[in-house]
Amino acid sequence: MNIVILAAGMGKRMQSALPKVLHPLAGKPLLSHVVDTARALAPDNLVVIYGHGGDIVPEKLGADDLKFARQEPQLGTGHAVMQALPQLRDDVPTLVLYGDVPLTAAASLRRLLDMAGTDKLSILTVNLPDPTGYGRIVRESGDIVRIVEQKDASPAERAITEVNTGIMVAPTAKLREWLSTLSNNNAQGEYYLTDIVARAVADGVPVTSAQPDAVWETLGVNSKVQLAELERIHQRNLANRLLEAGVTLLDPARIDIRGTLTCGRDVTIDVGCVFEGDVELADGAVVGAHCVIRNARIGERAQIKPFCHIEEAAVGASSQIGPYARLRPGTELGEDVHIGNFVEVKNATIAAHSKANHLAYVGDSTVGSRVNIGAGTITCNYDGVNKHRTVIEDDVFIGSDTQLVAPVTVGRGATLGAGTTLTRNAPAGKLTITRPQQITIDAWKRPVKQPK
Amino acid sequence: MNIVILAAGMGKRMQSALPKVLHPLAGKPLLSHVVDTARALAPDNLVVIYGHGGDIVPEKLGADDLKFARQEPQLGTGHAVMQALPQLRDDVPTLVLYGDVPLTAAASLRRLLDMAGTDKLSILTVNLPDPTGYGRIVRESGDIVRIVEQKDASPAERAITEVNTGIMVAPTAKLREWLSTLSNNNAQGEYYLTDIVARAVADGVPVTSAQPDAVWETLGVNSKVQLAELERIHQRNLANRLLEAGVTLLDPARIDIRGTLTCGRDVTIDVGCVFEGDVELADGAVVGAHCVIRNARIGERAQIKPFCHIEEAAVGASSQIGPYARLRPGTELGEDVHIGNFVEVKNATIAAHSKANHLAYVGDSTVGSRVNIGAGTITCNYDGVNKHRTVIEDDVFIGSDTQLVAPVTVGRGATLGAGTTLTRNAPAGKLTITRPQQITIDAWKRPVKQPK
Amino acid sequence: MNIVILAAGMGKRMQSALPKVLHPLAGKPLLSHVVDTARALAPDNLVVIYGHGGDIVPEKLGADDLKFARQEPQLGTGHAVMQALPQLRDDVPTLVLYGDVPLTAAASLRRLLDMAGTDKLSILTVNLPDPTGYGRIVRESGDIVRIVEQKDASPAERAITEVNTGIMVAPTAKLREWLSTLSNNNAQGEYYLTDIVARAVADGVPVTSAQPDAVWETLGVNSKVQLAELERIHQRNLANRLLEAGVTLLDPARIDIRGTLTCGRDVTIDVGCVFEGDVELADGAVVGAHCVIRNARIGERAQIKPFCHIEEAAVGASSQIGPYARLRPGTELGEDVHIGNFVEVKNATIAAHSKANHLAYVGDSTVGSRVNIGAGTITCNYDGVNKHRTVIEDDVFIGSDTQLVAPVTVGRGATLGAGTTLTRNAPAGKLTITRPQQITIDAWKRPVKQPK
Repeated sequence: MNIVILAAGMGKRMQSALPKVLHPLAGKPLLSHVVDTARALAPDNLVVIYGHGGDIVPEKLGADDLKFARQEPQLGTGHAVMQALPQLRDDVPTLVLYGDVPLTAAASLRRLLDMAGTDKLSILTVNLPDPTGYGRIVRESGDIVRIVEQKDASPAERAITEVNTGIMVAPTAKLREWLSTLSNNNAQGEYYLTDIVARAVADGVPVTSAQPDAVWETLGVNSKVQLAELERIHQRNLANRLLEAGVTLLDPARIDIRGTLTCGRDVTIDVGCVFEGDVELADGAVVGAHCVIRNARIGERAQIKPFCHIEEAAVGASSQIGPYARLRPGTELGEDVHIGNFVEVKNATIAAHSKANHLAYVGDSTVGSRVNIGAGTITCNYDGVNKHRTVIEDDVFIGSDTQLVAPVTVGRGATLGAGTTLTRNAPAGKLTITRPQQITIDAWKRPVKQPK
Repeated sequence: MNIVILAAGMGKRMQSALPKVLHPLAGKPLLSHVVDTARALAPDNLVVIYGHGGDIVPEKLGADDLKFARQEPQLGTGHAVMQALPQLRDDVPTLVLYGDVPLTAAASLRRLLDMAGTDKLSILTVNLPDPTGYGRIVRESGDIVRIVEQKDASPAERAITEVNTGIMVAPTAKLREWLSTLSNNNAQGEYYLTDIVARAVADGVPVTSAQPDAVWETLGVNSKVQLAELERIHQRNLANRLLEAGVTLLDPARIDIRGTLTCGRDVTIDVGCVFEGDVELADGAVVGAHCVIRNARIGERAQIKPFCHIEEAAVGASSQIGPYARLRPGTELGEDVHIGNFVEVKNATIAAHSKANHLAYVGDSTVGSRVNIGAGTITCNYDGVNKHRTVIEDDVFIGSDTQLVAPVTVGRGATLGAGTTLTRNAPAGKLTITRPQQITIDAWKRPVKQPK
Repeated sequence: MNIVILAAGMGKRMQSALPKVLHPLAGKPLLSHVVDTARALAPDNLVVIYGHGGDIVPEKLGADDLKFARQEPQLGTGHAVMQALPQLRDDVPTLVLYGDVPLTAAASLRRLLDMAGTDKLSILTVNLPDPTGYGRIVRESGDIVRIVEQKDASPAERAITEVNTGIMVAPTAKLREWLSTLSNNNAQGEYYLTDIVARAVADGVPVTSAQPDAVWETLGVNSKVQLAELERIHQRNLANRLLEAGVTLLDPARIDIRGTLTCGRDVTIDVGCVFEGDVELADGAVVGAHCVIRNARIGERAQIKPFCHIEEAAVGASSQIGPYARLRPGTELGEDVHIGNFVEVKNATIAAHSKANHLAYVGDSTVGSRVNIGAGTITCNYDGVNKHRTVIEDDVFIGSDTQLVAPVTVGRGATLGAGTTLTRNAPAGKLTITRPQQITIDAWKRPVKQPK
């Protein structure tokens, strides 16, 4: 089939410099949700009609399988589809989607396509308890005979609860023909795609319909209020999917997933967590309250304690992270590694059974196994212009408040005394320190309060 | 007009040492919400009737435009209004409000005042799906003829869903007259303000009414359960106002605003944030999850990452703050300043393009532009009794784990080596260090496990 | 009475390696909730029927007052109760509960037991708006005559909204008799406890009923979806109980209590807090947003600021903790102690009026009164194999970035200069330092950018 996605609306009510269809839902532009759904249907042609915001839409979403057509000026949905016509194949039907209706399920669209076959017009309709404002589906003997807009509807028609979602499939040659006959002789001066229904009926082309599983599949975004509503619906759906897969969520209303969260068996996620990008939680992993995790792999039985911030990092099995640990990009932790409170790790590998439990910065480092990094330890990896690497071999013990001025290597089994400023390599197996003598000043007097 | 606010109720169900009307809603006492609404109506006289809790109510809320009258003992709403009479002007009508009904909109009260004019009694009424317990508005031919309490109501009257909110406007001279005729011949021995409705009808004074836009405008607080309910309603309203103004809220149910939050265009606020006092977020500012921000200005396109705690501070445009950054009072950050994880800044100005990315304390300091403050740097601003100032000039590079013992100045372009304890000024352009020689102890043996 | 708790179900839909009844609700296994409710009824015999998951159920819950019986294979609820028979006393009635129905109130069960007396069968029933799928309670002239399952129900019976919860009380000798007559001649090949109702009616034993106060008392857990639903219901109930007791909760939907939270008067708890184990908040205590507190006592008027993590610790009256303070097990803080941002305290007592305001680690320490612990101070309590103690006496001032290499004592009134590495005791009243001379290197040149 051909798929045309209408994405040219300016979205004035969004009150934003960003075109409406680029506003993110669950961390991804509205339009990308629609494009991804379209891709799941394996179309022959996938055409995005853009307009508002200049070329930012094709710039942001450009991909080999996407064609773009600019609609300018914007003269209605029928006019929008016309812009796609040169790129559509006549021998397959055309599905029309909307860049601001992000949550339509592919399964619903497949049903719609099945109803359309190759020679019928098919409309995705939905029953609304309060259909006010929507175009009603008027049927006679069960057959759709027309769509009547709110303002033109008779009292009997206004009582109809089945409404047009705007999503439809049409035989492409017929669509081309019908569109060419549309008139913009109306108050808005626009060409309405909906008008092809009347053309189809007049032509004797059967008009069929399908319905989505849920009303929210058809909801569009015109304002930040609606965006927030859809965000919540979507997040709740994602949470339910996790629960159904056996994940324990302490509060399904307080988890945010902006990307793909893949969970093993017996995973527990506490309240207030945010997941972004691709995150994997292996069997038995536990994520404590109020963690933010982005593009990360968390190993089996690893414990992420509250208030952790993890980004582009891998955590080994049975590791204990946090509370208040920050793992930055390039962090690779082995098995049973402990990273404690107020510790930052960046672009560093730390091998099995090593620990940095308190107030430390480990950056641009290679750390061996069974290393103990004392509280307050800092790898001085940056000289103001260059970054240098610190190597800490297996079984090293680093005393508290030590600075490792990179490039520097601490040999296997070495010990660094507390407060050391290490500027040259520390030999293996020995104690290295930089320590002035401790002196006491007998005559010293404490400062006294100064008058202001 | 005169406005009388009844605020003498003890609020026993609040189970608190604090008078009920001083309990905060959205960070502000219930009574202050009512006083602020009253002020929006520009009254000639604004009288607060207090009682329970002694003088703490006038002490907390005292202001030039407020008059206070003490009601003691507390013999009902009619008796409460009587205490205000000496301070009321007869030539303007009197509006009666309640210190525990915090969310009435000024617009609703203006409609009520319009209905009252100068010579009518006007009651704010509301329709409740379940009116049980409330005084019903009994009308004949559309005119209000009396208010009947639940216990006195006939079955037909109990079916009435329009109820009295207690908020009313009366011509003041008439009010004075009616109040003088009230009786406390009832089970509670109280004088009821509601009884003036019957007096007005008897006097032939027209009784009119107005309705608020929403039921929650008329809800009162008698318990912590009700306080929590109103807090949530109010917070949701505030969130909706932000959404309507174009702010992106990741979850409108998880933002708390206790004061005034002013947002520019294209502002995004993630889940779990708390705003207190006056906070401004300029165009394009992004606030990450779980931040607490109080009395602060955040510049254009600044990014506040998760878990930041900002108080009485200003953040320059395009700055990057956090995660886990704490900006304390007196912090002024220039453009493109980076304050990273586990960094505390207090009473300090930091100029454009400077960075303190890790584990540092910058207090009582003046920091120039393009300064790099290394991890673990601490300004030793306090000698136990006095605070001293640290000055770091432009283009300084401060090595990790350095202590700057104030008062001290680091000259322009100076470098401090890692681990320096700076007690005297560091000259511009040069490297200053305090560093013992690094030594290795060959014969050293690691500690062995001691028997307990 | 005897109480039998059926806890042998495998809970396949939980998709977990853990037996269903061991999954936690509010931090406690489902079964433990039921056992605790059973204990509140002071039974003569308390028998848990287990099965799935081998012996892990008796291992986890074993207690002197609990008897266990294994059901294997698992042939239905009737068969499960049969396993308990050898351990039941005939002279008292038997109450049957379910290990996956965690929230039944003891008061509801007492009413049920009262209805049963010593000689009647009594069923806990509940009215459901949508009873689909449940066994309906069929009554004639008000008397229960049978329970009809969904699949066997006539249209009239399907309209019955009173359903069987499965919880029932029976005279034990009769129960023994009835169970011996049960048949498993059904599609599942199971023995159904429900069938004893028909036996009772046939025997002329009166069948009575009681109803719980709320439907959620009878909800069971078969999936993570249902577990999350019950968790939320339970948490909301706990929040309401706090509100009714006068606690101020900024959002009752955003507090999690997994254990017992005991609050004094005028306690305020902000959004996003998690309480685990036994936590006491004394009069006037304030807990800021996003705190995690486990097994702790917080003193009167103490302020816990946002993002604190407190575990097995005691905080003195009027202390100020956080933001971002971590109090680990064994922390005992006196009155008016200040523990500030990015400070970790472990196994340490800190006496009145002492402060550690920034970026410090105080572990295995005894700290006196009026001590000032500077920013970046670290107690080096661990030599790689042993933990040693640090003693800091009253009125000590510890300069920033100091390391105290334990075991070590700082005498009363001593001062340690910034950057000190203290390896021997510091005498009282004097200044002790380890400080190299500050030198400036005139010829020094900054590093230049290296080609990659």
